[in-house]
Amino acid sequence: MTKALHALFLLLALSLASAAQAERRKVIVDQDAFEGPGLQPILMLLQDPTVEVLGITIVSGDGWAPEETAQTLRMLELIGRTEVPVIQGAIHPLINSKARNKAREDQYGALGYRGAWTESWPGDNTMKRAPFHEPKVVPPMEIGLPKIAARPGSAADFLIDMTRKYPGQITIIAMGPLTNLALAQRLDDDFAGRVKELVMEGGMFLAPPAGTKGDEFAAQVSHAPRLSFNHFWDPEASHIVFTSPWQKLTLVTGDTSAPTRAGADLLARATASKRPVARYVAKTAQPGFPLWDEVEAAAWLDPTIVTQRGTLAMDVDLMPGANYGALLTWPAGKGPGLGERDVNLIYAIDVSKLDTMFVDLIGR
Amino acid sequence: MTKALHALFLLLALSLASAAQAERRKVIVDQDAFEGPGLQPILMLLQDPTVEVLGITIVSGDGWAPEETAQTLRMLELIGRTEVPVIQGAIHPLINSKARNKAREDQYGALGYRGAWTESWPGDNTMKRAPFHEPKVVPPMEIGLPKIAARPGSAADFLIDMTRKYPGQITIIAMGPLTNLALAQRLDDDFAGRVKELVMEGGMFLAPPAGTKGDEFAAQVSHAPRLSFNHFWDPEASHIVFTSPWQKLTLVTGDTSAPTRAGADLLARATASKRPVARYVAKTAQPGFPLWDEVEAAAWLDPTIVTQRGTLAMDVDLMPGANYGALLTWPAGKGPGLGERDVNLIYAIDVSKLDTMFVDLIGR
Repeated sequence: MTKALHALFLLLALSLASAAQAERRKVIVDQDAFEGPGLQPILMLLQDPTVEVLGITIVSGDGWAPEETAQTLRMLELIGRTEVPVIQGAIHPLINSKARNKAREDQYGALGYRGAWTESWPGDNTMKRAPFHEPKVVPPMEIGLPKIAARPGSAADFLIDMTRKYPGQITIIAMGPLTNLALAQRLDDDFAGRVKELVMEGGMFLAPPAGTKGDEFAAQVSHAPRLSFNHFWDPEASHIVFTSPWQKLTLVTGDTSAPTRAGADLLARATASKRPVARYVAKTAQPGFPLWDEVEAAAWLDPTIVTQRGTLAMDVDLMPGANYGALLTWPAGKGPGLGERDVNLIYAIDVSKLDTMFVDLIGR
Repeated sequence: MTKALHALFLLLALSLASAAQAERRKVIVDQDAFEGPGLQPILMLLQDPTVEVLGITIVSGDGWAPEETAQTLRMLELIGRTEVPVIQGAIHPLINSKARNKAREDQYGALGYRGAWTESWPGDNTMKRAPFHEPKVVPPMEIGLPKIAARPGSAADFLIDMTRKYPGQITIIAMGPLTNLALAQRLDDDFAGRVKELVMEGGMFLAPPAGTKGDEFAAQVSHAPRLSFNHFWDPEASHIVFTSPWQKLTLVTGDTSAPTRAGADLLARATASKRPVARYVAKTAQPGFPLWDEVEAAAWLDPTIVTQRGTLAMDVDLMPGANYGALLTWPAGKGPGLGERDVNLIYAIDVSKLDTMFVDLIGR
């Protein structure tokens, strides 16, 4: 190779690398980031070289935000990614509360899942959890407590600041309740308009028969297919989000993850490399759960895994009864005109492609 | 054959006929009995020689009770079955009203169907209907007005009286809103306990995806699979019925009829005999609708057509919001303990057997 040709190749390589760097897709993950199923999808985003995770904002839901913040920080320490900021968000929903949820269950029957409100975790077939504790308590962690700290300030302010710095460039992937996003929108009425896309989760639309046997996760929601935890934990926040002027709003339905499982075999394949992320996942993964949030991360990372889409107008039922927090839908453009907007729905994905992505990203 | 043997055979034949007569299954049909889809299922019951229809009680729903009563009486005249009593029932739901329904739709979006509250019927692809009219108006009928009259008294009192006369022997097949049954139970607290079985309809449990294309009837309910007309017309009546002490309570879900259609071919086969019932159906049938109530009649007439069953605890959402009248379910025996009870559900039937039954019964 001549020197001139070599120089040309070098220039080309450098400019390609620079372009790739410049084109990395900016994302903020807003998550009720509990160890295992709550952190694995964040790892998928962190591991993708085409993605720049600007920060991880934490919201209560599966657990209380302070404990989730500690778990997220410890994960970043163990995988050597402490440059990614973690910002703690809202501890309590806007209106809902443990006491209100208990009153609702007393009157209308038990909900399948209560997240941080759960008073006693079943011994079997559930996530390994510290016993119920008050919101600000961070219980001991098997993998140790983090030495690094969260970035000061609120999650809502971080979301506002970053979208001012990169207007129209940031996708927010919300994997938990929507309290932080609702607060950001009410703090700054231009917030939603500056977000490139908001991706979130919820609801069963291709619902399995009520009383379905054999699939415990589907059975939980079969009685109330429009009720899902991220929305019934904080229904008022969901309503604010569904009626805000996002440039693009996408909802990944619960149907997408129903046929998925983080089985022992899949986890073994993903962690075989024994690199830092694989080692962390091998220590903290809990086999047997659907890949709830991993599907959401994957569908955004690689839209070609999506096999079924739709568009509906959506909002949330705010009546404080049996359907408090249930998703409401109408044909696209045909809602009551109370601020609800069309939402892009993802109903189904290619499970084998998802598994491959999970193995590749966790293993690299 | 000897005379003695002949006499023996005659005796046997007579006693068998008499036994069949004695064993005819007693039924009262409670129906929002509008011409076409509302009367065809009643004809199936009237045509079955093993069934004794003690009476037809009328409730508003698809139409107003006075018009439906006239249509039912005229049908009985034309088929020569004027011995079957028709008793007009409640014109208005217990609490709900056209004005309340309009306020609900203004706030929460249009419902797929409004029955007698419909202000203007679409020109195409709907039932042939007289324009909207006040509840007590009986508009002209193409097949003529009846000369016979309804039996005096209320439907609720008829239900109470007949179940006192035949305690534990009568099945009530409710094909419309449940106002008459709720009134009967509040008029006589022992009413439900005297009924052999109450069969009713409602809800989609094997719901098609929201925004389903290609099936307009499924699409109507896909946004609110737990809302169905018979229950959201009079939610409070449904709640009374779901919490009453029936000996047996069966609900035929909307899923059963989704794959059925009264197509032109099926109607042609059913009416080919040109006997009185076939002639009446040929005059009044409207091709293209699902066999909504015919499925309910058929599943009770011949339980072997049922292919999928289940049991759930059930009630109705009474919050005056987007889910007013929506069916609530819990696993059997696991409701909140507010009087809800286990219900036998029928999720699916054999469509080809249904078609055969329809053709046989209408044609005979």
